[in-house]
Amino acid sequence: MKASQYIKAGQVEYREVPLAEPGENEIRVKVAYCGICGTDLHIFKGHMDARVKAPQAVGHEVSGTVAAMGAKVSGFRVGQKVTVRPLDNCGECNTCKAGFTHICEKLRFLGIETAGGFAQYWTVPARLVHALPETLPLKLAALVEPLAVACHDVRRSELKKGDYVVVNGGGPIGMLIAICARAAGGNVTLCEINEKRLELARQLGFKVINPLKEDPGAIVRSETGGSGADVVFEVSGSEPGALVITQLARPRGTIVVVAIYSKPVPVDLHKFFWKELRMIGARVYEAQDYEKAIALTAGGTLPLETLISKVFPLAELQNAFEFLTQTPDAMKVLIQCNDEVEK
Amino acid sequence: MKASQYIKAGQVEYREVPLAEPGENEIRVKVAYCGICGTDLHIFKGHMDARVKAPQAVGHEVSGTVAAMGAKVSGFRVGQKVTVRPLDNCGECNTCKAGFTHICEKLRFLGIETAGGFAQYWTVPARLVHALPETLPLKLAALVEPLAVACHDVRRSELKKGDYVVVNGGGPIGMLIAICARAAGGNVTLCEINEKRLELARQLGFKVINPLKEDPGAIVRSETGGSGADVVFEVSGSEPGALVITQLARPRGTIVVVAIYSKPVPVDLHKFFWKELRMIGARVYEAQDYEKAIALTAGGTLPLETLISKVFPLAELQNAFEFLTQTPDAMKVLIQCNDEVEK
Repeated sequence: MKASQYIKAGQVEYREVPLAEPGENEIRVKVAYCGICGTDLHIFKGHMDARVKAPQAVGHEVSGTVAAMGAKVSGFRVGQKVTVRPLDNCGECNTCKAGFTHICEKLRFLGIETAGGFAQYWTVPARLVHALPETLPLKLAALVEPLAVACHDVRRSELKKGDYVVVNGGGPIGMLIAICARAAGGNVTLCEINEKRLELARQLGFKVINPLKEDPGAIVRSETGGSGADVVFEVSGSEPGALVITQLARPRGTIVVVAIYSKPVPVDLHKFFWKELRMIGARVYEAQDYEKAIALTAGGTLPLETLISKVFPLAELQNAFEFLTQTPDAMKVLIQCNDEVEK
Repeated sequence: MKASQYIKAGQVEYREVPLAEPGENEIRVKVAYCGICGTDLHIFKGHMDARVKAPQAVGHEVSGTVAAMGAKVSGFRVGQKVTVRPLDNCGECNTCKAGFTHICEKLRFLGIETAGGFAQYWTVPARLVHALPETLPLKLAALVEPLAVACHDVRRSELKKGDYVVVNGGGPIGMLIAICARAAGGNVTLCEINEKRLELARQLGFKVINPLKEDPGAIVRSETGGSGADVVFEVSGSEPGALVITQLARPRGTIVVVAIYSKPVPVDLHKFFWKELRMIGARVYEAQDYEKAIALTAGGTLPLETLISKVFPLAELQNAFEFLTQTPDAMKVLIQCNDEVEK
């Protein structure tokens, strides 16, 4: 089969690679689309060579159809539309035993620690495969994985209908969180410094704040009777972001940390204490978040199509990474992994 | 009556001051003991002149007896043993309306924003007075206020019986949290850098770690099968403290921020995200924490007496502040506010 493998920093290569036979508990998925995650871009830039064994196809935001199944797999049929929850946990650490398999202490992330989905076929454990409704277009279904991140974040926040919500950061995940929080009944404002992303957020019907031009704390307080937001999602990963979150939240409000910080950053623990805030870390997703994301995508009411900036063929993954590197306001870029894919 | 008033940075003065008549909803408490809080020491050092209107008696950790009552006060009798919950809330802000009156957006702290308990008598709103069991010695009852802080912190942590707990910081509040967490069924380790405080913690039966000599993260992981603590209380208020808490907590563990930080400090938000930690701010107490602290004190099983380092008479408050300033390992210092007090 063909795959586009990561070779070294700044280089991927479209190649012929062996087609893996599914093990007895595995499914071989014919990949329709595989989205490019921020993590994939980090890999492309060479930041994650400690985890990725080059040459290796990466990618984990996959939609496709069942191509073959191992002897012990049941509950699926060849040709069925599916997506993959790419978290292979150990099942034996304290965290797995406590039921939090998605943050397993020895987690293998499929497409990072193992071969990934930028390939014609992807062979994965059957227990990580989720069936899709046959009516769900596979192009949209490639957004299930990032949408599941957003569903997890919103579920962790425990936001209630009518809550005043601030999403701090308007990249693909921030935008999906905003969409998801609104679907859960939140009254959502998005903070972002990129004007093109702000324009997209406005088009999607969100209130927006550009913290380079306005004071988010003052605006949020004035809109909430002086108190602040019920729920704040920190998705910017920036130092100013880490400082503003404690200003934005109301007394007893909730902050969800979604962004990936590369080093410790100053947080206002005095405001945190003073307002008795609650801060929650939220990483990846659990099975129920996948099911929720599939249901939301299939529901057809979310503006997900708008978030797809561009689709490249598998042979052009190098171009796709370069496009993303040069286009900071791009949202989701998909790779079409077979010439012919089901709709 | 006599009071020891704060005059200016480094100076208090023992003086004759007018005796306030209780308003119709007020109680005049004859103060037996008033403990010195870290906040009082900050006031003495001149750090809080923006909030304190000198000359003014401060102090809020009071035990005493009812000396007089306003016309509309019921449920108390003259001579009854009482303590005071010194939080005068507005009742009208969003936070009060949401039921979190202890972190009212316009909170007046009795003994900071109003005259306090370093005086023979203290006149306060009756709704903030808690009755004490007549068998409870008033010397111990002066610890109800700081113990209520600890009860609030432990309640906010939601710690369960058998939980592995780390208290980071062994001053009076850290020690009370350790005592309270153990009473709630926690398996408590205390981190502290002062050797005398460590010795006291050992005497009280706690495991101890000195982070200047040992690696708290490594010790806690080795004692918890590699995972980390279920609950971490940050009471050190130090930069190293803010960094170590995310190392100490297990995946999905809880951190409670109790310490007062004077400026934003670096926090490892990557570890926070990676382990899906939960961080909770905890400030002062609610009425139920006072009732819990009174019950625990009256229960007679907690080693509270050990925490009283010294008792000074009201006329010697200046000496008491100087003693505390010069004795960094002192725990609780009480002021006896009348020559004759009930036991």
